[in-house]
Amino acid sequence: MNAADPTPAQPLPIALDAMGGDRMPDAAVEGALQAAAAGERVLLVGDEPRLRAAVAARPALAASAGDLTIVHAGDVIAMHDQAGDVRRRKDASIVVATRLVREGAAAAVVSMGHSGATMAAALLLLGRLRGVDRPAILANIPTKNGFAALIDAGANADCRAAWLQQFAVMGTVYARAFYGREEPTVGLMSIGEEEGKGNELVVAAHALLKDTAGVRFHGNVEGRDLLAGTTDVVVADGFTGNVMLKLAEGEAKVLFGMVRDALRSSWRAKLGGLLVRPALRAVADRLDPGTYGAQPLLGIDGYAFIGHGSADARAVRNALGTARRLVDAGVRDRITEGLAALVPSDRA
Amino acid sequence: MNAADPTPAQPLPIALDAMGGDRMPDAAVEGALQAAAAGERVLLVGDEPRLRAAVAARPALAASAGDLTIVHAGDVIAMHDQAGDVRRRKDASIVVATRLVREGAAAAVVSMGHSGATMAAALLLLGRLRGVDRPAILANIPTKNGFAALIDAGANADCRAAWLQQFAVMGTVYARAFYGREEPTVGLMSIGEEEGKGNELVVAAHALLKDTAGVRFHGNVEGRDLLAGTTDVVVADGFTGNVMLKLAEGEAKVLFGMVRDALRSSWRAKLGGLLVRPALRAVADRLDPGTYGAQPLLGIDGYAFIGHGSADARAVRNALGTARRLVDAGVRDRITEGLAALVPSDRA
Repeated sequence: MNAADPTPAQPLPIALDAMGGDRMPDAAVEGALQAAAAGERVLLVGDEPRLRAAVAARPALAASAGDLTIVHAGDVIAMHDQAGDVRRRKDASIVVATRLVREGAAAAVVSMGHSGATMAAALLLLGRLRGVDRPAILANIPTKNGFAALIDAGANADCRAAWLQQFAVMGTVYARAFYGREEPTVGLMSIGEEEGKGNELVVAAHALLKDTAGVRFHGNVEGRDLLAGTTDVVVADGFTGNVMLKLAEGEAKVLFGMVRDALRSSWRAKLGGLLVRPALRAVADRLDPGTYGAQPLLGIDGYAFIGHGSADARAVRNALGTARRLVDAGVRDRITEGLAALVPSDRA
Repeated sequence: MNAADPTPAQPLPIALDAMGGDRMPDAAVEGALQAAAAGERVLLVGDEPRLRAAVAARPALAASAGDLTIVHAGDVIAMHDQAGDVRRRKDASIVVATRLVREGAAAAVVSMGHSGATMAAALLLLGRLRGVDRPAILANIPTKNGFAALIDAGANADCRAAWLQQFAVMGTVYARAFYGREEPTVGLMSIGEEEGKGNELVVAAHALLKDTAGVRFHGNVEGRDLLAGTTDVVVADGFTGNVMLKLAEGEAKVLFGMVRDALRSSWRAKLGGLLVRPALRAVADRLDPGTYGAQPLLGIDGYAFIGHGSADARAVRNALGTARRLVDAGVRDRITEGLAALVPSDRA
């Protein structure tokens, strides 16, 4: 299961849920065609007639697209559906796409749809890695000088200290593989830097993290440290992490809106605005959540990625690229190794 | 206790802890002199010889300052001290300043020093209001179209649902008095808008807030809603609130740093930067936490305000103004009335 062919002629394709998300299937088809044109192998999962039509509507792109296969799925989990629906709706696009990973036909599943359903399908069909109590979502946060890995960004609203310790290990493995940092630093989100500051969960997690093999623990960090890039990895419970992620994205939007308004506030500002626009555009692009396209769900026995419901073709293309990088880096196996070091009795 | 003179010739002064904070006593003395020159009555609490010298070093300001009195306090709680030290260090500036409120010699206490010590002194010497389980810190957050009141911004790391309900009442009273909103809306910070989304605390608090007299409950809000100004009041536990506050302030700093760097990135951008600087300065000023200078600790039987350790003279002056506005609006008594409506059995 999930094992690649022992003598693969080429890497396994990535299964893309082409139906979940606000702009689907168009953004999925467009992004997948772009990725395929650049050499990626994609399984486009969804309503076959609609997907064929969407591909046919893009003849130029389709002509240059290499390896793109449509896999039919007759159902789709909508945003207002329950995550648990994945148990009985076996023809839903996210279920079919995840099953392709389970059956060894795809290396990873990517969805811009119902994030709860994507998590539920991954747990149900792929299962957890040995040593993982709860899988977690990891978000790439643009910082002053690069990116920070925020984990958990929303999978687990109520957490235990031991789960946060596992998040620290998974975040470390990720930062090493994806950011190329040899010894990533890990901060524990709290409301004071000193040990003993924070809520009960954080105080307990701090005590565990101090002595965690393979984790370079920096200590507590505060809200301001996230974008300052104080540590490579920031560990939080999924409630705090999700609030932070949405606050950070929302604030960037509001502040750039204020700057935009300010650049229209006078003739002088308008003239200056014309001159500074390219420079400001570069800043806005750097903060765009579409840069990485999707967030990995770490701790499952396979690869699953969750994107924004508002994802456009560029975000879809980038999500496929992110998925490929994590698969190539063998992050799943590195996590298993990292967690084995946590609990010596788990070793063979 | 705390009762104003029945026939006051003039309002009670505000007691300012002139020793706690990074730039003290200079910022306190300068800010207090500015406020006094504008008609405020201030009791400057701290080391008398140092305060006299700091006043003497500002002869022009001192000449125009009206009602400024120095009250000696021979000790100061430093940032690395324990909050509980206020119990035995009776000559500490924050203790002396808070005692002035208790004894009816001051209307409010303002400190830029150790926030835990300021809270501890307020609890010890002033006590809680009837109906309040835990006092909470309220932070004014600059939003797209005004300000939002975030409560609790850090006083209580672990909360119960009933406390969050009380925060909602206190935030409502505050937003009415301070922002002039007749019927302020209240959002509960969560990770999904629907009832049932969130951690256990939020789910329980949502059920209470739905039926809370005097609170116009909007429902759950998400991280992005804070700066979007979706509601006038945002209720959170003190851990989440403090993380949000520091993230919001830190992000504004990082983003403006990025914009500043971008405006130096080319000759074209530099030229445009000269033209847009005044307009961008106005945006940065609006986001400056020094605008209100200090955050009220709500739910105590008196008025206490906590400022940034890095506060400058402007922040001190604004903190004194904020304190005066809340005292004049009788926020303490409005909170008691609001909480009495929560528990009918508490009514006389």
